[in-house]
Amino acid sequence: MKRKIRVIIWGLGSMGSGIAKMILSKKGFTIVGAIDMDPGKIGKKLYEVLDTDANEDNNCIVVKDADEVIKPQFADICMIATASFTKIVFPFIKRAAEAGMNVITTAEEMSYPKALNPELSEEMDRIAKENRVSILGTGVNPGFIMDLIVIALTGVCDKVDSLNVTRVNDLACFGKSVMEEQGIGLRPEEFREGVKNNKVAGHVGFLQSFGMFEEAFNVKFSDVRQEKWPIVTKVKRSTDTVSVNPGDVAGCRQLGFADLGDREFIRMEHPQQIRPELENVETGDYINIKGYPDINLRIKPEIPGGIATIAICVNMIPLIMNSTPGLKTMLDLPVPRAIIGDVRNLVKDISN
Amino acid sequence: MKRKIRVIIWGLGSMGSGIAKMILSKKGFTIVGAIDMDPGKIGKKLYEVLDTDANEDNNCIVVKDADEVIKPQFADICMIATASFTKIVFPFIKRAAEAGMNVITTAEEMSYPKALNPELSEEMDRIAKENRVSILGTGVNPGFIMDLIVIALTGVCDKVDSLNVTRVNDLACFGKSVMEEQGIGLRPEEFREGVKNNKVAGHVGFLQSFGMFEEAFNVKFSDVRQEKWPIVTKVKRSTDTVSVNPGDVAGCRQLGFADLGDREFIRMEHPQQIRPELENVETGDYINIKGYPDINLRIKPEIPGGIATIAICVNMIPLIMNSTPGLKTMLDLPVPRAIIGDVRNLVKDISN
Repeated sequence: MKRKIRVIIWGLGSMGSGIAKMILSKKGFTIVGAIDMDPGKIGKKLYEVLDTDANEDNNCIVVKDADEVIKPQFADICMIATASFTKIVFPFIKRAAEAGMNVITTAEEMSYPKALNPELSEEMDRIAKENRVSILGTGVNPGFIMDLIVIALTGVCDKVDSLNVTRVNDLACFGKSVMEEQGIGLRPEEFREGVKNNKVAGHVGFLQSFGMFEEAFNVKFSDVRQEKWPIVTKVKRSTDTVSVNPGDVAGCRQLGFADLGDREFIRMEHPQQIRPELENVETGDYINIKGYPDINLRIKPEIPGGIATIAICVNMIPLIMNSTPGLKTMLDLPVPRAIIGDVRNLVKDISN
Repeated sequence: MKRKIRVIIWGLGSMGSGIAKMILSKKGFTIVGAIDMDPGKIGKKLYEVLDTDANEDNNCIVVKDADEVIKPQFADICMIATASFTKIVFPFIKRAAEAGMNVITTAEEMSYPKALNPELSEEMDRIAKENRVSILGTGVNPGFIMDLIVIALTGVCDKVDSLNVTRVNDLACFGKSVMEEQGIGLRPEEFREGVKNNKVAGHVGFLQSFGMFEEAFNVKFSDVRQEKWPIVTKVKRSTDTVSVNPGDVAGCRQLGFADLGDREFIRMEHPQQIRPELENVETGDYINIKGYPDINLRIKPEIPGGIATIAICVNMIPLIMNSTPGLKTMLDLPVPRAIIGDVRNLVKDISN
């Protein structure tokens, strides 16, 4: 029997913990390291932090100092789930790659880092190749439903005139930081102010999705722009972490546009809010391709954000381990797929 | 400027002609050879057969003897659209690959040739590698909507319990050979007899799709079976090529099942008929994943068969030219995508 795939989890927030749990539920993985900054987690065994029973695959100690586990050849893959932005995760990625580990990160900007950080992207590609590892950013969005799947569907089109992509989702299950990023609970004028001064980040991903489209189609958009509008609720909406009164902001309706020449080629719409059902808004993913042929896709309800991002990060592990070295995007790799059996059988070479 | 991508079209039926037309509508392609057996086409210029205006990219003469164009390094890619079965297209593929050409074929069995012809598949892989070319079978189904897209969707799943895939389509636009393959126009007892003696072929593809699922998930199905049932019409249904009376067969409802252990894991349903709207049957593609999360996808109307197969064959050209040598399936390659600009910019190396 081959040895197990050794994983390090860097960041034990909701994404990182979810990734750890999913990995531990599959055959053929072992978690050899976990890194977090939370004093409530540091020094504990991973299984305690995850609130599961102990076994040989989950009993590493959560450390604060990455040097304790980011050591040469200590793991096959490092999963980084600490932040959304390339600049912030870059030093972590660099350290893991230089220690000979493949890297997968949930950082939204890393799904297409060339969009905003072409120089860092070149550096990551170089580091990955020098160390013969692969680096990938992925997630449900960006990375899958508003870009990769849209691009794949154009593969059965002779002609593509325009793309209209909508994702209506429910944020009720998320925690406080997501509510703040989306401006939920603010008064409408505070929301508008927050958009101006970047306190309301909204969805991080349209620019990365647009970058993927540009590369897939080998085009250069003549203009790309985004808008963020408050979703003002007419009824009281509450979750475990936030309560919003009528007239206040229950979400962020984000729009993105990409023009090709003098016409609009892509329109993205992504209203993210808590408890949309209270105003009879149905969640779903919608892709409309105008071209030859037209394609109208609907996924209802929407692919749920949290678990889908966790799953795609884990499911890409064999594909990134089998990949040629370098900085990769979802455009470079074969399609994702669920891990059903022992993950070791999906990995071509497991060095000892 | 790089030179144009040189294509040979082998088979000028509805698929091959459609592929030729689509290729000629894109920038950066030139068709350098066309092969057909139809005396009405042999000796004519390709543009005459396609009924378009002449230019430098479509003025080759349609030949009967493949030797006239399947010559070393005469083309970059050979598109083979002559038959559905691996055994039948194998000699064509071998000749083209040995002449240094990449190959894409519409032959349904070639979308996953290992399912029925493992030895021929090994031989094709060897020939491809020896000649440093790539070979791919693809189409809308098998090759895309009932397999590749389903597999890609499982990529955002932590757990997959079962897959239910349905494609309800309209065959009205197809010609006489398709009507015969599907048993359209027969009496129900003739249809049942035709299924027994293989005169009613139905859809060729479930076994190939199942093979793709087995490889993607690295599982071995404990049982795989198919059923073909007549769609008996209650009303008169007519197309340009066939007219069916009430009580007779207007289509073939094909079912496919794949078991994992002692439970059903995949259920495929593919009713193909003419003019389903006359009995209020709505066409569409439906994918239901039971697992965590559940995913319910609908594409309505269905992705149309003819143009979608033509498009995916053409759109895969840059991906197959950029691929490592060997026999490939859609599981091995990055996702398909429409060709929007000049195809030459999508191909990494164009040798001279």
